[in-house]
Amino acid sequence: MKKALELAKKGEGNVSPNPMVGAVIVKGNRIVSEGFHRRFGAPHAEIDAIEKAKEPLAGSTLYVNLEPCYHWGKTPPCVDRIISERFRKVVIATSDPNPQVKGKSIRKLKSKGIEVKVGLLKEEAAKLNEVFFKNMLKKHPFVAVKIAQSLDGKITTKKGESKWITSLQTRNYAKKLRDKYDAVLVGVNTVIKDNPTLNGTKKIPYKIVIDTNLKIPIHCRLIKKHKDKLIIFSLNPAKGKLNALRKEGIKIFTFYNKKTLPLKKVLDILYRINITSIFVEGGSFTIGSFFDAKIVDKIYFFIAPKIIGGEKSLTSVGAKGITSLNKPILINRISIVKVGSDFLFTGYPVFR
Amino acid sequence: MKKALELAKKGEGNVSPNPMVGAVIVKGNRIVSEGFHRRFGAPHAEIDAIEKAKEPLAGSTLYVNLEPCYHWGKTPPCVDRIISERFRKVVIATSDPNPQVKGKSIRKLKSKGIEVKVGLLKEEAAKLNEVFFKNMLKKHPFVAVKIAQSLDGKITTKKGESKWITSLQTRNYAKKLRDKYDAVLVGVNTVIKDNPTLNGTKKIPYKIVIDTNLKIPIHCRLIKKHKDKLIIFSLNPAKGKLNALRKEGIKIFTFYNKKTLPLKKVLDILYRINITSIFVEGGSFTIGSFFDAKIVDKIYFFIAPKIIGGEKSLTSVGAKGITSLNKPILINRISIVKVGSDFLFTGYPVFR
Repeated sequence: MKKALELAKKGEGNVSPNPMVGAVIVKGNRIVSEGFHRRFGAPHAEIDAIEKAKEPLAGSTLYVNLEPCYHWGKTPPCVDRIISERFRKVVIATSDPNPQVKGKSIRKLKSKGIEVKVGLLKEEAAKLNEVFFKNMLKKHPFVAVKIAQSLDGKITTKKGESKWITSLQTRNYAKKLRDKYDAVLVGVNTVIKDNPTLNGTKKIPYKIVIDTNLKIPIHCRLIKKHKDKLIIFSLNPAKGKLNALRKEGIKIFTFYNKKTLPLKKVLDILYRINITSIFVEGGSFTIGSFFDAKIVDKIYFFIAPKIIGGEKSLTSVGAKGITSLNKPILINRISIVKVGSDFLFTGYPVFR
Repeated sequence: MKKALELAKKGEGNVSPNPMVGAVIVKGNRIVSEGFHRRFGAPHAEIDAIEKAKEPLAGSTLYVNLEPCYHWGKTPPCVDRIISERFRKVVIATSDPNPQVKGKSIRKLKSKGIEVKVGLLKEEAAKLNEVFFKNMLKKHPFVAVKIAQSLDGKITTKKGESKWITSLQTRNYAKKLRDKYDAVLVGVNTVIKDNPTLNGTKKIPYKIVIDTNLKIPIHCRLIKKHKDKLIIFSLNPAKGKLNALRKEGIKIFTFYNKKTLPLKKVLDILYRINITSIFVEGGSFTIGSFFDAKIVDKIYFFIAPKIIGGEKSLTSVGAKGITSLNKPILINRISIVKVGSDFLFTGYPVFR
């Protein structure tokens, strides 16, 4: 199963909105074939492994990190192929949360007399496909938040200076993280101040701008380059600018008669247009708003070994904040690694 | 020398303003005696070891973590006793920064034909006596700052709630840290809000309150209990309250015709009254002021795995803050340990 998980990971960044899946076929103590899901539309891992096998598979065991599919999608159901190949046993890390599958394949395999074992390396498998699991269970994109702050929680000096708090290695590391997600999201003030491109190292992600009053500068890099990848959310925008930007072909979603942008509805819309994951990069207010809305799934806190200080310096998580220490936002499953001279805290917020 | 350092540490909390010193006497491969400086006024480590020895020491080697004293203090100079005992060799971790010693003993030992080696475990020895080294080199108390914050740098919610951010284990750990320092320092707002006792687990430290307008409540615990340990610094205090408090026997230092409290002068005064180290516990403005004045020697950042958020929540390091990221306050020699569910970052700020 470890091998299957390793194979699955090779599909990272290319299979969305599908999950990453790897498969290993074993006869006795011998691996007779391996496969993985390479990219969206390509054969599933089980089929890839079956087709690469150079011998009949009757009586062998299949290791796969996710329950095989039960339904017709871009490809026929894997479960039927496994049955027709006459596998003796199927070992599955986790069942598929997709309502179209959700244990149906497991039951079908068992009904055909195939031995099924579920749960091996379950946690690793769930973590590998955390985006897919969130998608299936909540019908929302997975939301990861990135922060680069000083030890005392500041992301700018009192004068608004923010370049740079973390080391070059950290900035490169953070850029690579963009490759893991479908879209990068920032508030319009970040666009105005930094004029970023928000690209990854391997791909051009979607760029989402939260822009309440449609203040985005018409000559910013996000519009000049890859404007087909730009998505703006706005509240009561001025008609003239709205039309001008739309004429440029930029996708703008608007909300009217609201005081603040309803972020959960933003996630509804993003999921509907096939954005399965977003990487929120700031600034202070935008990140704070995501925590206020209780919609953060994962955090990446890069902490530089520095003090900035100052009551007027911006902090990493702004906006409203929690109302009581009895209801804190706890961060579960924290891990710390050193990146350059900085420390990266990764974890999973739990909201109450 | 490792053994000498371990012995030295046994004097922690009792020898101030003296350094912690341990001594080990070796003949061939055999330890023939050990000693340490137990408390201020008691014999120095070298003498303690010499007097406990049950055989003549001529020809043996002395390991000691600090250069032996050259001058008459509460006890006669150790250097002369070492010479009269006819040691063959003396191994010293660091020379003594005290201007009354500063290499004089090393030279005297050498002039008497004793072999002297300096520098073994030098860094460990300097760290062990970091308070003493600061005292000797700068004629100021050593300043350690303690912070208990969320991952995003907050020490209160937007409503000012601060109990509790860190875990019980962390609070107990922090209380023990008070035992290491002569005095605990807070701003008056912390006294008004939390009414703390600021005691350690083993001793009653001096309690220093930075109280610009002399707002300290007359019935607070710091005044009710151990008021002999209370020291207040104030700026243009109202005469009536000043006299009332002084009548209670409380030590108050005042500054007039100043806009802000001159913290370096506060350190001058504290050192003059034999406070060799202070442990600064907050709040946001007080801690920020110490960083603004560039007088922090060591930090203890306890970070709870929580997000508090909110632009109105207080952050750990307030006041003015740095003016440019080109001149950050870097934290050197960072170490991280887990305390309860929290993380403790320890390090040494470098100011430019």
